[in-house]
Amino acid sequence: MNGGAMTANSPPPYDGRHVLADFHGCSARLDDAGLVEQALRDAVTAAGATILDLNLHHFGEGQGVTGVALLAESHMSIHTWPEHGYAALDLFLCGHRHDIDAALGVLAGALRPADIRQRTIARGYGVTALVE
Amino acid sequence: MNGGAMTANSPPPYDGRHVLADFHGCSARLDDAGLVEQALRDAVTAAGATILDLNLHHFGEGQGVTGVALLAESHMSIHTWPEHGYAALDLFLCGHRHDIDAALGVLAGALRPADIRQRTIARGYGVTALVE
Repeated sequence: MNGGAMTANSPPPYDGRHVLADFHGCSARLDDAGLVEQALRDAVTAAGATILDLNLHHFGEGQGVTGVALLAESHMSIHTWPEHGYAALDLFLCGHRHDIDAALGVLAGALRPADIRQRTIARGYGVTALVE
Repeated sequence: MNGGAMTANSPPPYDGRHVLADFHGCSARLDDAGLVEQALRDAVTAAGATILDLNLHHFGEGQGVTGVALLAESHMSIHTWPEHGYAALDLFLCGHRHDIDAALGVLAGALRPADIRQRTIARGYGVTALVE
């Protein structure tokens, strides 16, 4: 990964935060590839992260969309099952340099879940893995 | 996502397993984009999953590699920090149809970590989120 301002001596060297969010009861059209792509792009912008590449796959009319944004900082992904109003999202970024909550807010605004199950996991070197 | 043999009436409808694995003290060259790409491809094959797209970015000589395999089943990703011998891996697949342990074995064989910190999180509709 790109080191940015981090060096081998910076404590903590990589303070990664990986948010796994399960969106249930989404009222947005989860089979709309354009909507999912725009949600991903807007979430990356809200987080202050940088897209290296964005790949999207639509499984067909009325079916799910899967998309991954490859970031300079790690990745964001969305996988949708429109027939169940369900979307599985990942946001893996550096915790103290990026606004993960803002990104999640953008995603919730776009996909409109009735219920969100979310967990945040600390990852990186120089940090102890934990579940918040 | 593609439904495969699953229907709205299948219990559980989507039994997703998301493995987050942190590889520490890797003795393989984590700045070798070819090695990381091959490890990803071999891991997908070992899991019995299907690649839709694979994207890789190398941050430059001696620096990290970030790669994501977009799968018909969800995704696998690797982000490496060679200067710290550290790699953050994600394997998000259907738990009972794919061999996630085989994929992890392939990745460990390729990246040769001294220590692995791993957690498995159940995701999907019709399942209760848990950490194993």
